[in-house]
Amino acid sequence: MNADKEEQPAFEICLVVPKRTVKEEDESCDCIEVLEKELRNSGFMIERAVGISDDFIKLAAPLKTLGRAASELRMKKPTYIGMDLQFEWREVDAFFRQPDGSLFTWCERFQCYCHLLYGIVNNSKFAATLRLDDKGFLWGVGESLVKRLESQGVVKQVFPLHDEVKKKQLLKSWVLNWRDVTNQPIDDMYLYFGLKIAVYFSFLRMYTRWLIFPAVLGLMVQLVDFRSLQMMVLPVFLICIILWAVLFFQFWKRKNSALLARWQINSFSDEQGLKLLSKEWGLQSSEHAQDIIKVKQAYQRNEWLGQLVKLRNNSIVILSIICLQLPFELAYAHLYDVTASDAMRFGLTAVYLVVIQYFTRIGGKVSVKLIQYENNDNREYCADSLVYKVFGLYFMQSYIGVFYHAISHRNFKTLRKVLIQRLIIYQVFENLLENSLPYFKYSYKKFSAFRNKKIGHSIMSKIKFNSKAEKEYLKPTYAASIGEELEDGLFDDYLELALQFGMAMMFACAFPIAFVFAAVNGFTEIRADTVKLLTMVRRPIPRATATIGAWFNIFQFLIVMSICTNSVLLVCLYDQEGKWKIEPGLLTILIIEHILLIIKFVFSHFVPEEPAWVRAKRAKNTTHAQEICHKQLLRSFSGGKRHWE
Amino acid sequence: MNADKEEQPAFEICLVVPKRTVKEEDESCDCIEVLEKELRNSGFMIERAVGISDDFIKLAAPLKTLGRAASELRMKKPTYIGMDLQFEWREVDAFFRQPDGSLFTWCERFQCYCHLLYGIVNNSKFAATLRLDDKGFLWGVGESLVKRLESQGVVKQVFPLHDEVKKKQLLKSWVLNWRDVTNQPIDDMYLYFGLKIAVYFSFLRMYTRWLIFPAVLGLMVQLVDFRSLQMMVLPVFLICIILWAVLFFQFWKRKNSALLARWQINSFSDEQGLKLLSKEWGLQSSEHAQDIIKVKQAYQRNEWLGQLVKLRNNSIVILSIICLQLPFELAYAHLYDVTASDAMRFGLTAVYLVVIQYFTRIGGKVSVKLIQYENNDNREYCADSLVYKVFGLYFMQSYIGVFYHAISHRNFKTLRKVLIQRLIIYQVFENLLENSLPYFKYSYKKFSAFRNKKIGHSIMSKIKFNSKAEKEYLKPTYAASIGEELEDGLFDDYLELALQFGMAMMFACAFPIAFVFAAVNGFTEIRADTVKLLTMVRRPIPRATATIGAWFNIFQFLIVMSICTNSVLLVCLYDQEGKWKIEPGLLTILIIEHILLIIKFVFSHFVPEEPAWVRAKRAKNTTHAQEICHKQLLRSFSGGKRHWE
Repeated sequence: MNADKEEQPAFEICLVVPKRTVKEEDESCDCIEVLEKELRNSGFMIERAVGISDDFIKLAAPLKTLGRAASELRMKKPTYIGMDLQFEWREVDAFFRQPDGSLFTWCERFQCYCHLLYGIVNNSKFAATLRLDDKGFLWGVGESLVKRLESQGVVKQVFPLHDEVKKKQLLKSWVLNWRDVTNQPIDDMYLYFGLKIAVYFSFLRMYTRWLIFPAVLGLMVQLVDFRSLQMMVLPVFLICIILWAVLFFQFWKRKNSALLARWQINSFSDEQGLKLLSKEWGLQSSEHAQDIIKVKQAYQRNEWLGQLVKLRNNSIVILSIICLQLPFELAYAHLYDVTASDAMRFGLTAVYLVVIQYFTRIGGKVSVKLIQYENNDNREYCADSLVYKVFGLYFMQSYIGVFYHAISHRNFKTLRKVLIQRLIIYQVFENLLENSLPYFKYSYKKFSAFRNKKIGHSIMSKIKFNSKAEKEYLKPTYAASIGEELEDGLFDDYLELALQFGMAMMFACAFPIAFVFAAVNGFTEIRADTVKLLTMVRRPIPRATATIGAWFNIFQFLIVMSICTNSVLLVCLYDQEGKWKIEPGLLTILIIEHILLIIKFVFSHFVPEEPAWVRAKRAKNTTHAQEICHKQLLRSFSGGKRHWE
Repeated sequence: MNADKEEQPAFEICLVVPKRTVKEEDESCDCIEVLEKELRNSGFMIERAVGISDDFIKLAAPLKTLGRAASELRMKKPTYIGMDLQFEWREVDAFFRQPDGSLFTWCERFQCYCHLLYGIVNNSKFAATLRLDDKGFLWGVGESLVKRLESQGVVKQVFPLHDEVKKKQLLKSWVLNWRDVTNQPIDDMYLYFGLKIAVYFSFLRMYTRWLIFPAVLGLMVQLVDFRSLQMMVLPVFLICIILWAVLFFQFWKRKNSALLARWQINSFSDEQGLKLLSKEWGLQSSEHAQDIIKVKQAYQRNEWLGQLVKLRNNSIVILSIICLQLPFELAYAHLYDVTASDAMRFGLTAVYLVVIQYFTRIGGKVSVKLIQYENNDNREYCADSLVYKVFGLYFMQSYIGVFYHAISHRNFKTLRKVLIQRLIIYQVFENLLENSLPYFKYSYKKFSAFRNKKIGHSIMSKIKFNSKAEKEYLKPTYAASIGEELEDGLFDDYLELALQFGMAMMFACAFPIAFVFAAVNGFTEIRADTVKLLTMVRRPIPRATATIGAWFNIFQFLIVMSICTNSVLLVCLYDQEGKWKIEPGLLTILIIEHILLIIKFVFSHFVPEEPAWVRAKRAKNTTHAQEICHKQLLRSFSGGKRHWE
């Protein structure tokens, strides 16, 4: 179990520094030498790699160094007794070990690396002069070295490195394992990529496997002739599909909590946010009852202001989607309909695609801006808030055109054609783009790197990099197409799933085979995403999100939407002669009813269930308790550890 | 703070024993003398009261006795650091004190009393012979004395006593406090009646206060003429009402969690159930991975079997309501409609009321039977399960007739008349019954007690009881009209609120003033219930339920129902000429849509979110941790207690 202590730690972080032309002038002043020295002093193991246009400092941290960082960070870690306690190096045996026997998860290691890296400060009494080639600058007392170097442009980037050994293992056991297509080495993924990506892949896997049922059902509905029962087929199909979707997401929740139990992730609370909350409570509260009332009131004021800001932001987003995007989409759908020639249509679509790209980008930026004013306790809440807002945009963009066709034509053949078009375009186009774009980006960067070195164009393809680090440096990051600062590449992957799910569900009655497309897409997606993650992009920065977050609610929303749209579709389908004319009065009342139902379920989320001060008080209590008692507890548990397993 | 230690403890429990004719034969054998001796030995303070037909042994427990019982029970209590830890007498200063400075809540005290009372066993090596008057029986080794005496009919009953001093204080500050009608000394109520009743009254208070808004709105809609906007009034009113209801229940959740924070009730988990779960886990699990998988499978099998049993039970209840009760109710409504003479109608209603009473009783009994097969972890789950099932009965009974009138007549005047009748009957009749029934029961018991003593009828009213204990013994218990074994009197009170709420909400468009009735009822209910609790019935057995439980979901269900019914009412209202004829096809599809929506929201609850084994594992971990560390923790906290406040 302690084998990893002796094991050579892998190089997991890379610093990019410029290639120097002049060398060995005065080692004590040369900033890169100083950096290396200081890194060694903080306990890192260093490997220097010389690249074509830059140099790379690869860092590895022995377990002891990580442990020191973890106790400095007062990191909470799960123990064998199922409580999260502050890490203490001395009581290391009390803490839960990962499936491969390592003490820290990749996410925790990354946190430690960052802490150590940016924690190198000038401890002497005087500012030091550092030089790079011929430029000189001061390293102030108490200033972080890496930050200073970053601001001077010396440290161009800090990024996590792939671990070549583990990567190859994963490629073998995961990407190239063709026997069971949906099988995944979920533990290894968790250890290598961190929690959030592992959760994504297990969701994707479960989703794809469950999709087989509606795909088969859809095929049957499409192909089999049920004779006299043909009238009944679509409603029954609809009920089955809705049931399937509801049950799938319930079972996903179970699966998710089983996963967390497997990795001993106990109470996934928003640690950061709670700490902040409890700190405020501690600062403001005193013994007097009157003061406590004041503090409570302050909390409530803050809480409601935050809610109002959120409400305002959401209204802005929703209104701008309805007032700006909806007319635009409808105009496009209408124009596409009325234009006769195919050439014109093609041109129109091209213009539309350019404009919509632009539109989405603006939307994303506006959303990010808006979110900055919300006082979200925690980074994951911010990300969720962004996801909701941006999904609104994509929702309109993806479905409104199809709706337009469905309602205006009442012609199911056209609708099906549109759906097939969209589904195939999504599938082929998205998958191609997803996998080729990173490659092209990489090629372009490689090309420019070589060009800078003035190496002839003709032999470029033959030249190999000296170091893997440089190759990775040139690869694109795993980032979302919008809002790089808040979301990583998982945003795009989830978005694709959600849009596909919505397309299949919302028009289930019109086009039952859509589920077959979705299933096929799922199977390709599993492979495409793994290949992308392991070979196309840099190793992503690990994130410790335990659930699929905002996407769960989006999927739920799509289920409810699909109930309503399918009902409309059924009306259109069975009422082709238009005899069931719906009077405006009746329509109004039906719309009122649906609005009320929406109010019921949306407003239930508007008022937070627990006042902020209650949460703050509890947070303070528990954090306080754990801080005080963790040493005593640890001492009594380590040693007796074996009992707890 | 330690004043209560010196204070004389109040007599809170009473044992009823028969009045003896023969006395002082052999004190060591007389079972009542033995009982008294043993009670004194366990640390109780005893007062003997001589009644007219029975004798009463009143018990009080000094703090020390309670503390001993609590540590024997390994009772978890909140500490000043916000963690619930096992009670230890030595570290008493670390535990949270109630608002009045007492250490134990009434609920905890009651638990201790029971533990002490039934914990008196025969410790000697031989069975003892006890006698009552001339009968003799054996008290076996290790047998509980009180249980033995109960089975012999010596201890006729054990019931909690009112604390006369506190009761008078409450009467003064609560019932007779007319300045602010809705004001309640919530802390005192909590201390005197326990958590569940305090939560009920704070719910009732908040509900009544919030009702003022829809009552005013309803009055305005009814009385003010909006001229040209008259068409818009009802839909706007409907939207306001739904919003009001949704927001009210959200704010209630907040209020509830604030209440729990006020009384330092931390994690209200089902302690009992968790202990059971973790015990099983501990028993079955071992170190081998294979065994763990087996245990997991066993848990999952159990879990799903339980779910299936619940599903079956619910189907039985729902089917029998639809197949048995619905036709009966419809038949009554129809017959009532077609009969011409008032006398006939009166007779019909009388028959109906008798039959329905019978029906409800049978329903309650069947439900209780069904629930026994469900493996509900915990008593409160059982109670909730019963509440859902019985509410189904009452729901049909209360509303189906009104629906029948609304749909069949499309005549709003008749509907309003029916509604007014029902509302007034509910209000007047229920309140009268609620308060007079206990009094009549009491009088009857009093009468029979005196008659047994052969005291002349004529002077009965002049005779006073010697002891308050006897007076209380004759009072009825605070029990529900159905299923006495599972639910206390709060069931009836919540049921009344829920039915009133449903009546007002579901027919809001037809009869906006219903909210005025509901508000008036709320105000009277606050008073009536307090009077009933303090003077009419015995002190209820305290229960530590932290929320309104099943009733919350029932209220939510009523809100959703009211959205649908009001939409139907609006259609009837605006479409009086019947021009908006709804084609059967359209109707079918609308019904399918609504069924799907129901499926969506009901099935979301069908699959438990967390597998049972995950819960069991966590439960085991945390209980283990707390058990091990509580002593160390307590030692470090008590003493430093002042810091934590």
